[in-house]
Amino acid sequence: MRQYETAELCLQGSAPKGSEAVVDLTAVFGKDGKTWNVKGFYTGNGQYKVRFLPEECGTYTYKITGSVLQAPVFGTFEAESADSLHHGPVRADGTALFYADGTRFTGFGTTVYAMLHQSDALMAETFETLSESPFNKVRLCVFPKHYNYNHNNPRFYAFQRTGQAKDLTFEVPEGSEAAFSITAKDGENWDVHHPVAAFWDAFEEGLRKLQELGIEADLILFHPYDRWGFSAMKQEDNLVYLDYLLRRFSAFPNVWWSLANEYDLCPEISLRDWEEIEAFVAEHDPFHHLLSNHNCLCPWDWSRKDTTHVSWQSKQFRRVSELMQKYGKPVLFDECRYEGNLPESWGNISGKRMVQSFWRVMSQGGHCTHGETFFPGSKEAEANTATGESEVVWWARGGKLHGESPARIAFMRGIFDSLPGPLEPSADGLAAAMSMPDETFKKMEAAMPASFRVFGESMLAMGKRERELFAMTEPEYGGHAGDLAFLRYLDTECCARTELRLPENHRYRVDLIDTWNMTRETVLTGVSGKVNVPCYGREYCAVLALKEE
Amino acid sequence: MRQYETAELCLQGSAPKGSEAVVDLTAVFGKDGKTWNVKGFYTGNGQYKVRFLPEECGTYTYKITGSVLQAPVFGTFEAESADSLHHGPVRADGTALFYADGTRFTGFGTTVYAMLHQSDALMAETFETLSESPFNKVRLCVFPKHYNYNHNNPRFYAFQRTGQAKDLTFEVPEGSEAAFSITAKDGENWDVHHPVAAFWDAFEEGLRKLQELGIEADLILFHPYDRWGFSAMKQEDNLVYLDYLLRRFSAFPNVWWSLANEYDLCPEISLRDWEEIEAFVAEHDPFHHLLSNHNCLCPWDWSRKDTTHVSWQSKQFRRVSELMQKYGKPVLFDECRYEGNLPESWGNISGKRMVQSFWRVMSQGGHCTHGETFFPGSKEAEANTATGESEVVWWARGGKLHGESPARIAFMRGIFDSLPGPLEPSADGLAAAMSMPDETFKKMEAAMPASFRVFGESMLAMGKRERELFAMTEPEYGGHAGDLAFLRYLDTECCARTELRLPENHRYRVDLIDTWNMTRETVLTGVSGKVNVPCYGREYCAVLALKEE
Repeated sequence: MRQYETAELCLQGSAPKGSEAVVDLTAVFGKDGKTWNVKGFYTGNGQYKVRFLPEECGTYTYKITGSVLQAPVFGTFEAESADSLHHGPVRADGTALFYADGTRFTGFGTTVYAMLHQSDALMAETFETLSESPFNKVRLCVFPKHYNYNHNNPRFYAFQRTGQAKDLTFEVPEGSEAAFSITAKDGENWDVHHPVAAFWDAFEEGLRKLQELGIEADLILFHPYDRWGFSAMKQEDNLVYLDYLLRRFSAFPNVWWSLANEYDLCPEISLRDWEEIEAFVAEHDPFHHLLSNHNCLCPWDWSRKDTTHVSWQSKQFRRVSELMQKYGKPVLFDECRYEGNLPESWGNISGKRMVQSFWRVMSQGGHCTHGETFFPGSKEAEANTATGESEVVWWARGGKLHGESPARIAFMRGIFDSLPGPLEPSADGLAAAMSMPDETFKKMEAAMPASFRVFGESMLAMGKRERELFAMTEPEYGGHAGDLAFLRYLDTECCARTELRLPENHRYRVDLIDTWNMTRETVLTGVSGKVNVPCYGREYCAVLALKEE
Repeated sequence: MRQYETAELCLQGSAPKGSEAVVDLTAVFGKDGKTWNVKGFYTGNGQYKVRFLPEECGTYTYKITGSVLQAPVFGTFEAESADSLHHGPVRADGTALFYADGTRFTGFGTTVYAMLHQSDALMAETFETLSESPFNKVRLCVFPKHYNYNHNNPRFYAFQRTGQAKDLTFEVPEGSEAAFSITAKDGENWDVHHPVAAFWDAFEEGLRKLQELGIEADLILFHPYDRWGFSAMKQEDNLVYLDYLLRRFSAFPNVWWSLANEYDLCPEISLRDWEEIEAFVAEHDPFHHLLSNHNCLCPWDWSRKDTTHVSWQSKQFRRVSELMQKYGKPVLFDECRYEGNLPESWGNISGKRMVQSFWRVMSQGGHCTHGETFFPGSKEAEANTATGESEVVWWARGGKLHGESPARIAFMRGIFDSLPGPLEPSADGLAAAMSMPDETFKKMEAAMPASFRVFGESMLAMGKRERELFAMTEPEYGGHAGDLAFLRYLDTECCARTELRLPENHRYRVDLIDTWNMTRETVLTGVSGKVNVPCYGREYCAVLALKEE
């Protein structure tokens, strides 16, 4: 047993009577007066497992009880201190993310929704690609996915099918894009009390491989792109499914709970259901993994107590600061369009736009998620036919990456990993002033030099709506780590020089970064206060001032 | 005399007593029962002029009276029909602009604020550049301009200086960028009752040259970037200045009245003053030229009755439709940042961004204005030293153009000039739905197919503010001319194909346009209804469907 790694206890008992998902098996782990209540799960043939995630090294006691056991089981185990590859679960601290061991986490995400529902060959290719990529988080679904360019049936289903036939044939409906026509009747396809071991074992194998690659699994528990009925199960079945999933997955160090991809597009799950699901997950996860919910249109209410972070589908990159202030939680842009060439506008941005999105978000201290959607059959996607499968698009199924952004995101990650701390948004620009609450703004306006009052008066005259809309199109993207680092992403500004205002009482080195051509050079050293920084006069550059020793 | 050209009558009289600006000389022109009241102006040596702009051909009568004349003057003149170079003043018709002769006008503007305050050599270069450019409107100031990169004194001042010394030396204040510290005291520098003929004659020469080039002069009557005091004159002096200007300029076919550049940054002119100025200009211009007011931050109230169009400094290109609906007037983005490499974000966008702005605005039926601000001394601006002057930046002083956008704007103008009519915004996208008033949206939502209700419900749940902010970042830019032409600017979308929904009852030819590489090819003919258009899969393309004969 080792700190930050999943510990697993195997037990023999009687086969469960009734549900094979919700079995009566509870473990209490203890250490130094602290206790963890953990439930076990059934794996067939009278065998049970209990999983635990030790976050401290040292001696743990456990006691396992339940009607499936002949007698309680007691024991102790020793958790050795973590190796250098394991940092524990990622958790929020204010608006930043850290692994349990204190290592800062900056979310360089990608998206492979149905990655663990593919053939062995394709999955092998996906893991190979991920191992060479800059991504440290992947958004992926527990259930299979049905959507344009992505119609294959999964290898396994999570549950046995109800009814006599147990037919596993699901035809692809003609012309159906998203399956918003799925109804509660389709939800009755599945007997959640009878999980299919092959599915869960294979899925866990995938989670473990991600862990080996240092990649967080942002697990999507529900989603609407479905033709099998998983998006339309009865709420009591949803909770049985979650109960079983949490028994199995909670002790994985690298899982996050994303209640949904596009929660607001699931017609059979009401807002009240979502809130119940959220509470259930939070209550049944003994290790308190990150938890959020992802929208299509209407944002989730990220102020809710069990929601640990903002997980937003949005291109409104100027609002990082607003969201951090409003929620006091980390801000993740978990979908901001995908690099590709699809007809749909969500799937046809250039590599330049993808990289720009990352810099816009991350220069302010947020986190960003990539995806790639080259048209199946287009030249960019041709290499995907290597596995002999059609319709292989990274965003849904994995395979290879073809875009221009991953190399730039890798370059970017090198810069961010070396920052002295997490960034918080800078608040010294015009857009920041425009975004302030009226009262804050009025105070600032009163302190302006007389010759600049004219700006303040005009801003006040604009009213809140015009100020907000104005701020949305300003190219102000920057952040700082205390007085240790100041980063400004220049976005589309092609300035031949720019001005930084650094603290007067420290000296700084200033690096000029070309985020697209992937160059970084030190252009000033030993500077303080108001500084003119020479720039390249082209788009997509950044300046980074780092406090000198 | 000729239709759409300035007619001028010269008269001898007694020298004015007192004011040489506001003289008692009024002409009444008549034709077919219509009359025009026009005031004359003094040109020195007992000479007066009256100018008139005949908009119809035929016989006009006139009667000129005033205490400066010994007796009223009567006469008639014949206006011949216009030659092919003259189309008359541009005026608004609904949300579109047309010359008086019915020719459609699409505003391809540029900005040379102080163009008529420069040396002969520099002005000659500027006119030469304009003659080869795609621009058909220029924003320029009556008064000289003081700002960063632009500090020279003008050749002439509009008025004599007050006081004994009549000193015309104005030092450049140290470190002063904008002269927001100008006060009413500085406004007393000028004796508006004594115009300087050399200034006005030279300025008119400039207006005539613009007219010869087919360029509208969007005349900026006031602005804050001043060290001479013109921005801080007493309101009664402002009106004397305007009275004189209107007597001289109103009969020029190609003038528009822009009350200000950045009206909201003039500390000595109150909102009430601006409203009085607006009413004064409208009342004293017998030919009803276009009139608007340009903001820095707080927009002008373009709903005002004498304001003929929206003249907005903004990058909020998604709001064309909203503004057209709200005001029912043409929408001009009269400042949306300049192509260049200055440190200031308003002056450092790339040519790509400038061209993108034009397409975003104009594909929806709006009008857009260019400007260029390459750092003096930078390689892009070196050629400007040809006249031996420093600090020559196009946006302030003219000279040569160095950017990448003008060639693409010329290509674009070719496309727009050949459209069968003015465009109005398309309203079939998600952002358009997001921008709707609640009631309109609810009606649309009720009509949605059941399987799409889930989108409507989520949009309603967002509330107005989130919907508006969402719409701001959607790449939806398109318009149509009735059922004759449908244009969609694909902006940053890199689609390999896109879908158009054309009317079922006509046949269309579809052209694919690369707005940056300046190519246009017909990719479909004879199509109707829902159409898949093959695209290049790169940024900055557009598709244009034109109704076939």
